[in-house]
Amino acid sequence: MTIKDIAKACGVGVSTVSRVLNGRPDVSAEVRERVLNMVEATGYIPNNSARDLGRSRSDAIGVVVRGTGNLFFSEVLKTAALEIDRRGYTMVPRFIGEDDDEVKAGAILEREKKLQGLIFLGGRFDYTPAELSLVGVPYVCCSFTNSFGSLAEEEYSSVCIDDFRTAYQAVEKLIEHGHRRIAALVPSCSDHSISELRYEGYKAALREHDIPFDEALVMECGGCFTMPEAYEGMAKLLERETDFTAVFVLSDTTAIAAIKAMEDRGRRVPEDLSVIAIDGLEISSYTVPTLSTMTQPAEEMGRESVKLLLEVMDGGPHRHIRLEPAFRTGASLRTL
Amino acid sequence: MTIKDIAKACGVGVSTVSRVLNGRPDVSAEVRERVLNMVEATGYIPNNSARDLGRSRSDAIGVVVRGTGNLFFSEVLKTAALEIDRRGYTMVPRFIGEDDDEVKAGAILEREKKLQGLIFLGGRFDYTPAELSLVGVPYVCCSFTNSFGSLAEEEYSSVCIDDFRTAYQAVEKLIEHGHRRIAALVPSCSDHSISELRYEGYKAALREHDIPFDEALVMECGGCFTMPEAYEGMAKLLERETDFTAVFVLSDTTAIAAIKAMEDRGRRVPEDLSVIAIDGLEISSYTVPTLSTMTQPAEEMGRESVKLLLEVMDGGPHRHIRLEPAFRTGASLRTL
Repeated sequence: MTIKDIAKACGVGVSTVSRVLNGRPDVSAEVRERVLNMVEATGYIPNNSARDLGRSRSDAIGVVVRGTGNLFFSEVLKTAALEIDRRGYTMVPRFIGEDDDEVKAGAILEREKKLQGLIFLGGRFDYTPAELSLVGVPYVCCSFTNSFGSLAEEEYSSVCIDDFRTAYQAVEKLIEHGHRRIAALVPSCSDHSISELRYEGYKAALREHDIPFDEALVMECGGCFTMPEAYEGMAKLLERETDFTAVFVLSDTTAIAAIKAMEDRGRRVPEDLSVIAIDGLEISSYTVPTLSTMTQPAEEMGRESVKLLLEVMDGGPHRHIRLEPAFRTGASLRTL
Repeated sequence: MTIKDIAKACGVGVSTVSRVLNGRPDVSAEVRERVLNMVEATGYIPNNSARDLGRSRSDAIGVVVRGTGNLFFSEVLKTAALEIDRRGYTMVPRFIGEDDDEVKAGAILEREKKLQGLIFLGGRFDYTPAELSLVGVPYVCCSFTNSFGSLAEEEYSSVCIDDFRTAYQAVEKLIEHGHRRIAALVPSCSDHSISELRYEGYKAALREHDIPFDEALVMECGGCFTMPEAYEGMAKLLERETDFTAVFVLSDTTAIAAIKAMEDRGRRVPEDLSVIAIDGLEISSYTVPTLSTMTQPAEEMGRESVKLLLEVMDGGPHRHIRLEPAFRTGASLRTL
């Protein structure tokens, strides 16, 4: 696939494709969109290295934010922006949907904006070296790591909590409060990503405490962590007429939506059902009831990701930083 | 105030100050911070025009986001980012605190990043022409306008709802539901900004419906729209032992915090107190109870701000776009 193929497929000239890929404004929005869609559909990645040699380096650090409705990412992004500013670089954000391909988006952003480095804020856990070879600058995986993939540890950096262990701790907290019939509301049990990792943590906690695993207590509610999906998933779980006293939910906002589904069906939290989640957003300490949750250190995550990226850009080794979550007590959890 | 004064006050050379102001990375974080703090404290604005003549133009559009905890702004920012991308420009965001000076921040960002245009996402409503003369590129006020200031209409652009009228409509909605003792929870009654405008809308609605204004029903809870401030403000209002059946709150997140304060004091929503707010965040349609609120069209606001800015950058006239809010029914409002 060459630039000529892209131009031909779009019915425009090579120079127009080139202008789009270089982020030049003198192209109509309609043509720009057509070209970028074609680039995405075909997987074409422009090779700019020859041209770049003649250019001065930029001070741009890209941040690809996957999942535009994720409030936790908003927190991380702000701290990352402040740290990038403070260090004299320019942050160039790009927001993509939860289902979009962040590696492709990052590779395009890198070429469009002449990035010096890249932060993936949210992404898949199963990258392959071939896939990541598209990215020609140092990058940091922020809020995730390559648990299911085949990247060599010394070839990428990551800053995140231990998702398996955090889920384990959350479920253990429910067990400590006397719960044994514990449901799990997860986007997917086998997405090779954050959801699978936290689901495995849930299962391990049950196993460790000799609680039999019951498939009927697990609800997969769709891959995108949205509140409507979580609401529907919880509603379906309640219709199953399976007994349970507590629910482990994967994130704060989906837990808030799940609690709404319970209340709408006459189940009170925490009197009838206890709920625990992972995130620790400020807003979930003001909902009724307040949410019991494992708090991820959002600010530290944003700041450490930028620091680590600058180290690597400066020739330092890739590293993997694991941050510690903290349990935040809320009214959604009661002792049986 | 010259660049020499700044250098002297900071104990560094002129070239170091220059490097900081040009956003060059070859300065230590400590020195950068000292210089930027001094620049901010003294109000010094570097004059880069001579040097800029020798440079190629950038494709950067700055977005200064004031109030980093504002979830509504997160929504607007994402849509603005997508639209800026789509049009082939580069978005350079800068996050500042609710109390920071967005004009100064914008003027510094403009020079650091060679902006072509600027969007203020949140800001004061009382700009003067002298103040805005610091900004040398076209700008759009997004989510606010110059209601209390002295800018000529043809010299700036704005995209927002009519805050006075939206507050009026919210309070009228309470009145239509039979409420006459209506409290108001506002950051400030006289900040010459969004809070004052919405407070005036509250008073006008009461007046129009022959409801006597009662100062004891108004609670000023601090200037920053934070959830802790709103929680404390609501708690104080309840301690006053003034009778009221409904509360008008300025934003969704502060309304959620206010409802928490009510519930913590044994007041149920909507059985004892009805609540209405302004914003229309997704999350407030999943809280218990769901919030009745005037929804601001966040996506349209972000998109229209970018479109208008590009028009003005292209030589078009400044314009003022007023978007229509929509009432969203929630469980927090009951008929008396």
